[in-house]
Amino acid sequence: MATVGFIGLGHMGAPMASNLLAAGHDLRVFDIMTASVEKLAAEGAQPMDSAAHIFSESVDVLITMLPSSPHVESLYVTETALLDVIPSSTLVIECSTIAPDMAKKVAAAAKEKNIALIDAPVSGGTAGAVAGTLTFMVGGEAAALEQAQTYLSVMGKNVFHAGDNGAGQVAKICNNMLLAIHMIGTAETLQLGINDGLDPKVLSEIMKQSSGNNWSLQLYNPVPGVMDNVPAANEYDGGFMVDLMAKDLGLALEAALSTQSATPMGSLARSLYKTHSIAGNGKLDFSSIYKMFGDS
Amino acid sequence: MATVGFIGLGHMGAPMASNLLAAGHDLRVFDIMTASVEKLAAEGAQPMDSAAHIFSESVDVLITMLPSSPHVESLYVTETALLDVIPSSTLVIECSTIAPDMAKKVAAAAKEKNIALIDAPVSGGTAGAVAGTLTFMVGGEAAALEQAQTYLSVMGKNVFHAGDNGAGQVAKICNNMLLAIHMIGTAETLQLGINDGLDPKVLSEIMKQSSGNNWSLQLYNPVPGVMDNVPAANEYDGGFMVDLMAKDLGLALEAALSTQSATPMGSLARSLYKTHSIAGNGKLDFSSIYKMFGDS
Amino acid sequence: MATVGFIGLGHMGAPMASNLLAAGHDLRVFDIMTASVEKLAAEGAQPMDSAAHIFSESVDVLITMLPSSPHVESLYVTETALLDVIPSSTLVIECSTIAPDMAKKVAAAAKEKNIALIDAPVSGGTAGAVAGTLTFMVGGEAAALEQAQTYLSVMGKNVFHAGDNGAGQVAKICNNMLLAIHMIGTAETLQLGINDGLDPKVLSEIMKQSSGNNWSLQLYNPVPGVMDNVPAANEYDGGFMVDLMAKDLGLALEAALSTQSATPMGSLARSLYKTHSIAGNGKLDFSSIYKMFGDS
Amino acid sequence: MATVGFIGLGHMGAPMASNLLAAGHDLRVFDIMTASVEKLAAEGAQPMDSAAHIFSESVDVLITMLPSSPHVESLYVTETALLDVIPSSTLVIECSTIAPDMAKKVAAAAKEKNIALIDAPVSGGTAGAVAGTLTFMVGGEAAALEQAQTYLSVMGKNVFHAGDNGAGQVAKICNNMLLAIHMIGTAETLQLGINDGLDPKVLSEIMKQSSGNNWSLQLYNPVPGVMDNVPAANEYDGGFMVDLMAKDLGLALEAALSTQSATPMGSLARSLYKTHSIAGNGKLDFSSIYKMFGDS
Repeated sequence: MATVGFIGLGHMGAPMASNLLAAGHDLRVFDIMTASVEKLAAEGAQPMDSAAHIFSESVDVLITMLPSSPHVESLYVTETALLDVIPSSTLVIECSTIAPDMAKKVAAAAKEKNIALIDAPVSGGTAGAVAGTLTFMVGGEAAALEQAQTYLSVMGKNVFHAGDNGAGQVAKICNNMLLAIHMIGTAETLQLGINDGLDPKVLSEIMKQSSGNNWSLQLYNPVPGVMDNVPAANEYDGGFMVDLMAKDLGLALEAALSTQSATPMGSLARSLYKTHSIAGNGKLDFSSIYKMFGDS
Repeated sequence: MATVGFIGLGHMGAPMASNLLAAGHDLRVFDIMTASVEKLAAEGAQPMDSAAHIFSESVDVLITMLPSSPHVESLYVTETALLDVIPSSTLVIECSTIAPDMAKKVAAAAKEKNIALIDAPVSGGTAGAVAGTLTFMVGGEAAALEQAQTYLSVMGKNVFHAGDNGAGQVAKICNNMLLAIHMIGTAETLQLGINDGLDPKVLSEIMKQSSGNNWSLQLYNPVPGVMDNVPAANEYDGGFMVDLMAKDLGLALEAALSTQSATPMGSLARSLYKTHSIAGNGKLDFSSIYKMFGDS
Repeated sequence: MATVGFIGLGHMGAPMASNLLAAGHDLRVFDIMTASVEKLAAEGAQPMDSAAHIFSESVDVLITMLPSSPHVESLYVTETALLDVIPSSTLVIECSTIAPDMAKKVAAAAKEKNIALIDAPVSGGTAGAVAGTLTFMVGGEAAALEQAQTYLSVMGKNVFHAGDNGAGQVAKICNNMLLAIHMIGTAETLQLGINDGLDPKVLSEIMKQSSGNNWSLQLYNPVPGVMDNVPAANEYDGGFMVDLMAKDLGLALEAALSTQSATPMGSLARSLYKTHSIAGNGKLDFSSIYKMFGDS
Repeated sequence: MATVGFIGLGHMGAPMASNLLAAGHDLRVFDIMTASVEKLAAEGAQPMDSAAHIFSESVDVLITMLPSSPHVESLYVTETALLDVIPSSTLVIECSTIAPDMAKKVAAAAKEKNIALIDAPVSGGTAGAVAGTLTFMVGGEAAALEQAQTYLSVMGKNVFHAGDNGAGQVAKICNNMLLAIHMIGTAETLQLGINDGLDPKVLSEIMKQSSGNNWSLQLYNPVPGVMDNVPAANEYDGGFMVDLMAKDLGLALEAALSTQSATPMGSLARSLYKTHSIAGNGKLDFSSIYKMFGDS
């Protein structure tokens, strides 16, 4: 068993850390919220009073799960500047969903210090984090990824190697942009069918077996009454929040601007999710975009 | 075996009629293009010199496959006014892709004459018509659909009952609108990934196994080099033409206007396919929308 | 002074008829709402109990102001079939805002009966109708327009000859589509400036004097607090209703479909106005689209 | 007369510097292109072999005109780090069009050194730069702007004070985003009218006098044949390039992402300009977006 440093114990980070503890690893944990640290300590982790303190003893791997690009830059490079403290023998697994450009920048800074670092953003939500069934999309060298598999396999069940550093982030935001496009498209299409007299269950079934088929139709129908056990069956409570989808679409557009790409559908998806949030729906599941189309 | 009237022997209608002939049915065929009629006659069909002439003898079923709403209105109601000629014992299977409102109008006119009529637009393209593997999306009464199954099963392999008359058309255009949204979304997302350094094969694979999954990724990848045996592998030749997709999106928007529906993604999809056609790509496969995003 | 038939005494038609009365013309009026007829009768008009009854005596000109394409078709061609009754000496001024295709159809039917008819949709709203300051956009022959000027000049102050029959409708819906694009663009741009720290008054002033200048900035600023005497200063009460703008955008898209035109901005504008209406804002002024962008 | 340092002698910077020379100021000029420096030297400016060398003698004001945010950051803060060299008595006028966030960052860095700096991006194009009729949109303190007026009035004719540092950039990109929305909207609307039988001259005239009125219709009609002396009359040569408009729209979206703003029209405008550029039109005038809609 290994010694693991873990920074960022929020809705995603906490259950990921718990799963590592349950697998028998020694954890040294830190978060700016003391209560989050104490909760993990009660499960057997060693509480640290600063990020740097984690490295007062030798650790095999550092895992971080932070809210956004500036947090990651601050932790590794500018304010806390953890890369000045981390021994080059430590493997770093950076799981935050951030801008690819920032992931590349941090990876380059790590490389200068001879520290092996992979970007490994996740999909699967809080439920996947608790169940240990997350999907990891990894950017970085194959050797580092191989070394990371032990830990990733405790927290998730699928691991994709997307390419060099930053590629994990690119894959993540590409996937979520396409998901947002599907979800809105599925919602407006089903409402068009309903308005023209069709039963959304029948129409969903037909499209699932035809060329309109997509993940939203299969597993996450946005129209109340079509599927059980989805947020649409529960007033759009739970699931993946509108504000988080809007954040990921923001990262996708940031990448589109940075790479001179045209993304008309993705841009419209961000605009619609953003207006949906401004209208007061930011905390609902992202399939609630259906409310924009249906008279209710 | 039955006697079948068949009107409309274009790229889709001709192979559909051939399959009915091959199954042993007697065919009485008409098209405004004499050459098309002669071709079917050479296969054993009885050539007719007018649509109405089909009914100079008793036929069990009439199948029509025409280009657009005005053709269907003209044939059944206004100019040719075939509904004045068709005996009420004849089953009518109307396979054209037309506006739901027109399908309902023609069905209502048939009902006044006690003629059983279903709308049964198809998907599957010319290849599916030749192979007899079309999908039929049917609107109309269950009894009429049951009666039609014998003929539909010769021409296709999937038959969906979408609802009352017109519902077949609604299901068809809903499906194709969602398909267009997917296809554009998939194309721009893959190009964003490419521009940020990813291999489109790798990114496609990751998204197929994640929440970005859709039919275009699975069977019809728009990026050259990712899949074999798709139009993208053959300079976008063959397949489903941009101009036909633009036509179907036009029908979807017509339905959206008629039913007071909001379809932001579908509307943008039509605008993009239409500008793609104006730029000279109307005869290419619809996955060629990828050219709009990739520097080539 | 002339004898004028007037059909359609709603929010626009009633004050237009009043102005003709005030100018000394004899009016024979009809509306399906008896109360509307009685109100004009109290002002001195002759009440008619049917549309056809207007022609029981000779009239010089018929003016109609109806809600939508089906009403106009029904009145002139199909149900009431007024064109069978109107003497060919009567000039017809059709002021409803309807689909250009319908305007052309009715004009063609009138021409068959040798009846001179122009389409003359208006802009300027209820206030303009009351004040007699409407703008007329006219389609039809120059001679008919010249004959109509006496009446148009009583109801409005600007008359544009857009072209042949139907062209008045095309000009009207083109103008309103561009207006909707401006209004949404102005609203989102001002909110972007506000969110980045600018005073909307200052930003509006700068853009008005620069290449961003448009009618909305000049006369109809959508941000509360920038201008007095606009709907934004009065909780978006009054003015031009969201639902009417959505109707006009629907006519524009119908024309775009009919003419195979690509209108990406106009299509998006319709989608946004339609979702704004679905969210419960249909009766507000159309500048209320600003609410979609501002945290309030 | 004053001593003026001028860095950045491209298409815009060179004529701006020439006008300052012509007004009698002493100029010390630098550009990374030696040829550009030599051209100004031939007009009487003192050529410098580095940016820092400008400050080997006292200068009253430094004016910079660079291509993008990274160039400005590099010159003032990171690589050249000119803020370490500039005496606090020097007024800095930064005329580049860059991200508001970068303008604020550089201004903050200048403030730490007690250097007065304003952001003063321009509109008016190369023609305006040559004629000395540019518009300046200024962000920064009123006192610094007052001091700058002497120089700005030589290079332009309008100066707007938009607010604090960065506000000049915000005003510029807001204006250009709204301009792009207008231009595309105007182009697609005019083509819709043409496709429905209208003369674009007549339709333009009607909309200019109605609520569709905007700067593009007034001074920069995108349809060939409507106006003389605009790029549309000259195969879209000259004017304001598509790639520059796409750059400004990119800055606008960067600001929208940074401020959590929803900009559906502006986002679509960027997507359309970007695909227009990918299709090979990047060097044409931005009114060439009309080609996207017209069959030509």
